[in-house]
Amino acid sequence: MASAPKANAIVSQSGGPTGVINASLVGVIEEAKKHPEIKNLYGAIHAVSGIVKENFIDLMKISNDVLETVAASPSSALGSSRDKPDAEYCKKVLDVFKKRDIRYFFYIGGNDSANTCFIINKMAQETGHDLRAFHVPKTIDNDLLVTDHCPGFGTAAKFVACALIGDDLDNRSLGGIKIDCIMGRHAGFLTGAAALGKQRDDDAPHLIYIPERGVSLDKFLSDVESVYKTLGRCVVAISEGICDSEGVTWAEKLAKEAETDSHGNIQLSGTGALADFLADRIRDTLKIKRVRADTFGYLQRSFAGLQSSVDASEARRCGIEAVKLSMTNANGSVAMKRTGNSKNYGVELFRTELANVAEKTKSMPAEFINKEGNGITKAFVEYALPLTGGLPKTEYLGR
Amino acid sequence: MASAPKANAIVSQSGGPTGVINASLVGVIEEAKKHPEIKNLYGAIHAVSGIVKENFIDLMKISNDVLETVAASPSSALGSSRDKPDAEYCKKVLDVFKKRDIRYFFYIGGNDSANTCFIINKMAQETGHDLRAFHVPKTIDNDLLVTDHCPGFGTAAKFVACALIGDDLDNRSLGGIKIDCIMGRHAGFLTGAAALGKQRDDDAPHLIYIPERGVSLDKFLSDVESVYKTLGRCVVAISEGICDSEGVTWAEKLAKEAETDSHGNIQLSGTGALADFLADRIRDTLKIKRVRADTFGYLQRSFAGLQSSVDASEARRCGIEAVKLSMTNANGSVAMKRTGNSKNYGVELFRTELANVAEKTKSMPAEFINKEGNGITKAFVEYALPLTGGLPKTEYLGR
Repeated sequence: MASAPKANAIVSQSGGPTGVINASLVGVIEEAKKHPEIKNLYGAIHAVSGIVKENFIDLMKISNDVLETVAASPSSALGSSRDKPDAEYCKKVLDVFKKRDIRYFFYIGGNDSANTCFIINKMAQETGHDLRAFHVPKTIDNDLLVTDHCPGFGTAAKFVACALIGDDLDNRSLGGIKIDCIMGRHAGFLTGAAALGKQRDDDAPHLIYIPERGVSLDKFLSDVESVYKTLGRCVVAISEGICDSEGVTWAEKLAKEAETDSHGNIQLSGTGALADFLADRIRDTLKIKRVRADTFGYLQRSFAGLQSSVDASEARRCGIEAVKLSMTNANGSVAMKRTGNSKNYGVELFRTELANVAEKTKSMPAEFINKEGNGITKAFVEYALPLTGGLPKTEYLGR
Repeated sequence: MASAPKANAIVSQSGGPTGVINASLVGVIEEAKKHPEIKNLYGAIHAVSGIVKENFIDLMKISNDVLETVAASPSSALGSSRDKPDAEYCKKVLDVFKKRDIRYFFYIGGNDSANTCFIINKMAQETGHDLRAFHVPKTIDNDLLVTDHCPGFGTAAKFVACALIGDDLDNRSLGGIKIDCIMGRHAGFLTGAAALGKQRDDDAPHLIYIPERGVSLDKFLSDVESVYKTLGRCVVAISEGICDSEGVTWAEKLAKEAETDSHGNIQLSGTGALADFLADRIRDTLKIKRVRADTFGYLQRSFAGLQSSVDASEARRCGIEAVKLSMTNANGSVAMKRTGNSKNYGVELFRTELANVAEKTKSMPAEFINKEGNGITKAFVEYALPLTGGLPKTEYLGR
């Protein structure tokens, strides 16, 4: 490997924001300042679209005070983009890199971003441009391969767990059924996090449904009825990507029903629709009066002031590691390996190939899901709880 | 006034939970322990329904450690009830009081609870039972009379403000329109709190709609279009109780439309329906592609670990004050008067007549609402910001 070139660097953020993606950004900035090989560090606004437009800001000039506030701010401080660049788009990115003598590229994002890194890096190698392309992982879905878990998940998990801790007490105080619809189209990690704050055997959530296990409406209703008969109440956490037993998502089924009804002005794919639909079915079928539904929506990924300290620290370390790796490697994605046990939690960072992370995603492993497919296991709690940085304890007296 | 009787006391919590209603409960308990006049302090489970069933727990026996956890826990630790007792029900309550030698009654709740206190206290006086009946205020809606503000509001306001701080950054990073539907059927205080975290002129929310000002769908759409043309994005905070220009709530109008369509299985009064409806109208009418909607729902009142320190402290003081007042008064509701200015915020507590608080509610005063009826004023921020106990600062670089 040739020694690190003296050249400019660029960093950007892509895809859906998280609560700690800015901690990774600040990690990249603070480490870049330590390496004289990096002349300027540009921040590209709105991801690849900002690169091709050369919409840059000079990140070396930002004061440490501002940087610490950035690190604690949710969402993407450089803006984001949903663009998935094709070969032509990537060529434009590379043209800008060549023109501006950019030889370090740090891209904070999910599996699509790892893929973009991979394509651009390959193109650079083919055209003799010494580019060091690094992917820094982020996603609230926790669905990237290789890494033990993803920066962004711990903070979103903390939000969901705190919501359910409160929702348990709310439901205890007034009774009835509560449905909480949680982000996750394909992976159930975040919905599973609903159970991380459980202290008492009868704490919510009482039922958890995730995309990895299909469930029919009949099974769902009979599960709810059974909990209600036992506890006199029931709180359900359900993924937005929940499927029926044939693997078709309920959202798709609802949208089709709405079309069949040729009722043009009602979009059942709207954010609140799935939870509202389930609440209606429970009211109609089980004849239970107090049924409420919440869809957590964007609060899960962008709520201010609620970072998991563990997640924020790891996200920052991932940003730092990407810059360190770029001094001796042409490319890679930063991944985490868990060390110690549940009482002595820690991670080591390591480099993995971009191709190992690009495009593919992972699901909840079978050992994290209970046999019935309507809850999570102790193994999942041991895996996920340390990532939240700790959760509030509560007391309920009325038992 | 006769000296305070040596007798038993009872405390209970009623209506919708808040994030600090348990701090008031713990205030009552800690102060009751200091007065030898109070023999036992019973906690009635599920409000008045627990009183008539004599479903009590002994609150003097709970350890201080547990009490501090209770004080920090959201929702009602004694359970709650939506029962609005009539004269016959109140007589049953009084019968239990007489039977169990209960002569102190502390009821933590909203205006209905003040009314229950009032009726039971009057009945007691008429039948010669020396009962000291005190109302301790709580409500996230902030709509009780006399008091400057209500315990519970500051914590809910903090939640809503933190949600909007994050939502502003999320919307900046990916653009488009975002609708946030916030609790408040008649009073706009909590929806107004969406603006408390604003740091920059172009921070969200850009439009705020509250029940005190009707708005037509046409005006709403033209407001959104106007902001979108200026900023390239728009975040709207809207109360669930928003009305049209004739004072009919949009929720009612939507429910009627659904009935007219005789489309039995779609309930437009479901929690997510109003926000989803508005998102659809924006998509259809303004032809804007990225439109998202969230309904904050129960998270606003029961999220764990997010108390406003100011709100929690005031809620506790209100509980303490009720017990103190009961030593020298037959009845009353605890109220707060603001002292100092916005930099030197504080409150003094005082007693007001139960009848002053019972049944009635207040709305946002005109000086808190902007002329256009689509935003709040600086006066509102000065009023409400201290109650949140401070909000996180953020930075966005991509401008």
